[in-house]
Amino acid sequence: MKALLLITSILFTSLLKAEDGYRLWLRYDKIKNPVMLAQYRNLINSIVVTGTSQTINIARQELLNGLKGLLNKKIPEANAVKNNSIFVNKKPAGQYESPAINYEQLGNEGFAISSMKGRLKDVIFITANTDIGVLYGVFYFLRLIQTQQPINNLNIVSVPKLKLRLLNHWDNLNRTVERGYAGFSIWNWHTLPDYIDQRYIDYARTNASTGINGTVLTNVNANATILTKPYLEKVKALADLFRPYGIKVYLTARFSAPIEIGKLRSADPLNDTVQQWWKEKAKEIYSIIPDFGGFLVKANSEGQPGPQDYKRTHADGANMLADAVAPFNGIIMWRAFVYNPESMDRFKQAYEEFHPLDGMFRKNVLVQAKNGPIDFQPREPFSPLFGAMPQTPLMMEFQLTQEYLGQGTHLVYEATLFKEVLNADTYAKGKGSTVTKVIDGNLDNHELSGMAGVSNIGNDINWCGHPFAQANWYTLGRLSWDPGLSSEQIADEWIKQTFTNDKKTVAVIKNMMLNSREALVNYMTPIGLTHIMYNGHHYGPMPWGNTLNRPDWNPVYYHKADSAGIGFDRTQKGTNAVAQYAAEVQNQFNDINKCPDKYLLWFHHVSWEHKMQSGRTLWNELCYKYYTGVDSVRSFIKQWNSLEKNIDEDRFKQVKQLLTIQLKDAIWWRNACLLYFQTFSKMPIPPDYEQPDKTLEYYKNIKILFAPGN
Amino acid sequence: MKALLLITSILFTSLLKAEDGYRLWLRYDKIKNPVMLAQYRNLINSIVVTGTSQTINIARQELLNGLKGLLNKKIPEANAVKNNSIFVNKKPAGQYESPAINYEQLGNEGFAISSMKGRLKDVIFITANTDIGVLYGVFYFLRLIQTQQPINNLNIVSVPKLKLRLLNHWDNLNRTVERGYAGFSIWNWHTLPDYIDQRYIDYARTNASTGINGTVLTNVNANATILTKPYLEKVKALADLFRPYGIKVYLTARFSAPIEIGKLRSADPLNDTVQQWWKEKAKEIYSIIPDFGGFLVKANSEGQPGPQDYKRTHADGANMLADAVAPFNGIIMWRAFVYNPESMDRFKQAYEEFHPLDGMFRKNVLVQAKNGPIDFQPREPFSPLFGAMPQTPLMMEFQLTQEYLGQGTHLVYEATLFKEVLNADTYAKGKGSTVTKVIDGNLDNHELSGMAGVSNIGNDINWCGHPFAQANWYTLGRLSWDPGLSSEQIADEWIKQTFTNDKKTVAVIKNMMLNSREALVNYMTPIGLTHIMYNGHHYGPMPWGNTLNRPDWNPVYYHKADSAGIGFDRTQKGTNAVAQYAAEVQNQFNDINKCPDKYLLWFHHVSWEHKMQSGRTLWNELCYKYYTGVDSVRSFIKQWNSLEKNIDEDRFKQVKQLLTIQLKDAIWWRNACLLYFQTFSKMPIPPDYEQPDKTLEYYKNIKILFAPGN
Repeated sequence: MKALLLITSILFTSLLKAEDGYRLWLRYDKIKNPVMLAQYRNLINSIVVTGTSQTINIARQELLNGLKGLLNKKIPEANAVKNNSIFVNKKPAGQYESPAINYEQLGNEGFAISSMKGRLKDVIFITANTDIGVLYGVFYFLRLIQTQQPINNLNIVSVPKLKLRLLNHWDNLNRTVERGYAGFSIWNWHTLPDYIDQRYIDYARTNASTGINGTVLTNVNANATILTKPYLEKVKALADLFRPYGIKVYLTARFSAPIEIGKLRSADPLNDTVQQWWKEKAKEIYSIIPDFGGFLVKANSEGQPGPQDYKRTHADGANMLADAVAPFNGIIMWRAFVYNPESMDRFKQAYEEFHPLDGMFRKNVLVQAKNGPIDFQPREPFSPLFGAMPQTPLMMEFQLTQEYLGQGTHLVYEATLFKEVLNADTYAKGKGSTVTKVIDGNLDNHELSGMAGVSNIGNDINWCGHPFAQANWYTLGRLSWDPGLSSEQIADEWIKQTFTNDKKTVAVIKNMMLNSREALVNYMTPIGLTHIMYNGHHYGPMPWGNTLNRPDWNPVYYHKADSAGIGFDRTQKGTNAVAQYAAEVQNQFNDINKCPDKYLLWFHHVSWEHKMQSGRTLWNELCYKYYTGVDSVRSFIKQWNSLEKNIDEDRFKQVKQLLTIQLKDAIWWRNACLLYFQTFSKMPIPPDYEQPDKTLEYYKNIKILFAPGN
Repeated sequence: MKALLLITSILFTSLLKAEDGYRLWLRYDKIKNPVMLAQYRNLINSIVVTGTSQTINIARQELLNGLKGLLNKKIPEANAVKNNSIFVNKKPAGQYESPAINYEQLGNEGFAISSMKGRLKDVIFITANTDIGVLYGVFYFLRLIQTQQPINNLNIVSVPKLKLRLLNHWDNLNRTVERGYAGFSIWNWHTLPDYIDQRYIDYARTNASTGINGTVLTNVNANATILTKPYLEKVKALADLFRPYGIKVYLTARFSAPIEIGKLRSADPLNDTVQQWWKEKAKEIYSIIPDFGGFLVKANSEGQPGPQDYKRTHADGANMLADAVAPFNGIIMWRAFVYNPESMDRFKQAYEEFHPLDGMFRKNVLVQAKNGPIDFQPREPFSPLFGAMPQTPLMMEFQLTQEYLGQGTHLVYEATLFKEVLNADTYAKGKGSTVTKVIDGNLDNHELSGMAGVSNIGNDINWCGHPFAQANWYTLGRLSWDPGLSSEQIADEWIKQTFTNDKKTVAVIKNMMLNSREALVNYMTPIGLTHIMYNGHHYGPMPWGNTLNRPDWNPVYYHKADSAGIGFDRTQKGTNAVAQYAAEVQNQFNDINKCPDKYLLWFHHVSWEHKMQSGRTLWNELCYKYYTGVDSVRSFIKQWNSLEKNIDEDRFKQVKQLLTIQLKDAIWWRNACLLYFQTFSKMPIPPDYEQPDKTLEYYKNIKILFAPGN
């Protein structure tokens, strides 16, 4: 009956122009606040854009269309700067008096936006050294208006802190997306290169609006076919489309491609013929796509081929590819995500394999490491590789797609997760050696630097499935431009552009977003629990999982619960993984009394009776956290429902329904995990909590068939 | 460079409200013709809708929204009928004087629309016996306005000719779609039943607008999981949504489900335990979905399990299921699409297996036959089953998704194909025993009747991939309501609702549509060639295909080209497949001099020098047809380009790009086929034709990897 009521109320909104989410954060709807609208209309009378390149034309059109929408008034383009002009110009302002702009500091991608002083009144000058800098400036300026910021007395200089700001698509050539929860791949390889889907252009434009400047089109579990001529022609079509938006195209290189498509008998990186094959392949690629970015490689990991198949090192493999693309200024991003079944502690393996190779990589190689030592869990300590390879540029790999974060149905704003890692202090060169300083190249003076986000984009109408998942795409763009931005700031911008500038609504949504990841940690993996999801698809809890041949694919490997306690002893008395960190960090994580609660079970096997900082026993704290997680979701539901009148019906209903699933899942997680861990602790769930209404057996019997993203 | 020019011109249309095709034919944009607009505005001042059921509320809202959009004016709802009211009422008009409406003839789904005569001026009365009839009437009325028909002096009575008007989704539970070319499945099983995608509702509404009243949600290559409790709960959510739109839900039944999910050791239809299992399963389904439609079954075909696994007949299998659903008024649609490798002639097998079973099926069984004897080819003679099973209701299975018709990239309007079959005369009861009369139940007095279309719907924004593919969905709805409608009429309606009422534009598009299927036949399989596509994915030509173990999966099996000639001898001297037709048809097809050219190679192995009706030799005719097909596509391109100013930019560009692919493909087909057949005929392609610029080897080496829809 509920469903029926729902029907009649959402019936008629859609075909008559729904809020379908396709426009993302570039909506440019008329400003509702009449005071602000009047101000902007007064301040902007014309635009003057100089230049005729494709990129400048894009900037011009964006400005025209954006202002037309936001101000609900056509702003004319003029030939000469007048009072109240927006002046967009890739050079110093010339005859118009301007504040001194230090062009040198703007570099190749930065821009400045200045309110000019002098003869003319209220002229806003958007400038840069490059066309793409101009485009970024225009997007920034439009964002100011979309978020209703003042535009008088502007004196903005913005320069990206990271050189490579990339999406990593785990998209297969058959259009399935590994860990994708938003439909099929947006890349329709079958109809490329002849058919250009409007989405390709909207994708590029959306990325440019946040500063994303590269995209790896294909899955790291790679298929060599993408490197064949017919597919390179398809890639070229995309590269041509993306170029004016400042976006370079990258591909994943399957290490065994010389065998699979080159008909060689080996892929040994020290073999001349193999090296030659890659050199010729690179030459071919660059003859088709002259500004091709380079390769991303997953090697000797989870069944992927790699240099170790020939008893060579990751450096041997990476360098061979690096030499192939170097003549064309290409780069190699070599992933550090490796682990094998023999390792005592999966935590340690990336470090063990890569740390000794520091200094052995070519200049055009970056090692791309996931934020934590395991695998995109709701919470991980920072990967010990950060700070441990000073001679190698380390690239950050975040995961936007919510593989372990509730997938397509949970509202999780990831900026807080990313910031926690970026702000972590590695102590590599003493206090203040944050992960940010490692990856932006400042700590060790690297020129190459980068951040990648594993894409959450699919062919769903709203691109990302969950309406709030769009925020994570936005976050990747903004944080890779400036890792110093706060989660609050990014959320604020996104909400205002995506939903509304209404203060109360912004505050409520921001509160939900900022607390969403901690809520998820609490109902999934509190106090440093990790990787207790279902095998394979990773949706839902399976802490009892113990049936796979590889121990490190079983949840029990990660929590090690027994009658004595729970947690993975990685102290000096255990696997000594802590030794991979700098002394200051090591000392903290190694000492059960200093280790922060949130990482406790990452590093210690802790007695059920252990007294936590809260004064509760570990068991009671575990219960407390799981129940708190569920309560948070209940609170999100209440908060969201309070916005019914402030949000369009389509997206209001969509999120409301998804929150209901999230609550159901959170309770599932809480009950399944506590009932299971209780078989070891033998302790009761405190009686003031609502008790699980299902048995452990019930939860063990839940099977998710046809889970998405596999 | 071309690509680049394209970019800048299509850049900015999209995010600022694109013509993305989502609204299908229910756009309700303001009428552009000022004269017509004024007329409608004068004639419609208020609406009066009586009733409060969900279906009536849908009708009310549709009418309000539709008129608001079309007339760009809010038409108020009134309590009492006045001059210029639209009066929507499920009963006789009562106090308002009306022309006599024969309610009996309207049945359960028909409706009447009448301009009332009497005291009040210009009242239009929409009425029916049922709520759904009313809704159909409202959609019909709105279509009159969308297509700018006069609405004075209306006296319309419309009653569906077929009882079952169904979409068959070949959608898998993992959201891939077998033979789907428009993205993922729209059914997101993972988030059902809790998350209701707006698309589900828009889907139902769109179907109701054409009279489609049922949908089979799952692939005929079935997975038994759909019959388990958790999935039935998901199905129920859809059934609840669809019910007010008059749409029943059906599922495919995997014949071995009793083994796979019932843990029985057999699925033998004569086994008591198996029968009991299905009875209980049916009971369970109907307890969840009281108006569940029934099952569609593919059995003993292409590897699917079936009754023959137990040496039982199709009737045994169908009847077991029929008995299970009969207490709940469910039906079984049992597919006649069967063939096995032992058969001398695949053409004959469906008839051989099913004809002897006529009269042995339960009353609630329909045998669902594809339109032709083989498999949805560009052209087939009608299946000899039509007319040959007078005691069994035969349901027509058409394929909307373009498996063999250029898939996602060719513009093919299928109504002409469907009508060719429907109009074919089986002579089963003498002249005039058309296929239409067989399937509508008139010829043999069946109460059950139906038409199914294999869905072309996916999660692409525009639903069907190619903008023109929407027309085929529309066609299924309209033709299953009234098989007597002409292709012209349906195209006319669809174009006016989907693109424009502009006369020239309608004429040009209609011309393209009406000629599109014949063009495709010409460049793919002229003169009765068939099934010479690539194995497996069926995209592109592979007449040389000869490598599969099953002869009937190899193209050479179908064309039998040799030095003497080409074609499959199905005459009395050959496999005698012609004997499956009534004498009149048989005599025609059997005689090389009477057999229509278009079916010639279906029935005869014909000498390369054979004189065709045109006076050309067979070889020259073959060349002529292939070249004509390509020329037609060139002509479509010219025609389409002439409409640049009359079509919105988005769809204009989209179709333009697709036509370019279609031309490329048509040339590929022509050259590959003629070069290959030339190796047998040893005859030249007449010199006045442009000669193939590639070799046969070149074409043989083309490999389509990752083709969609597999």
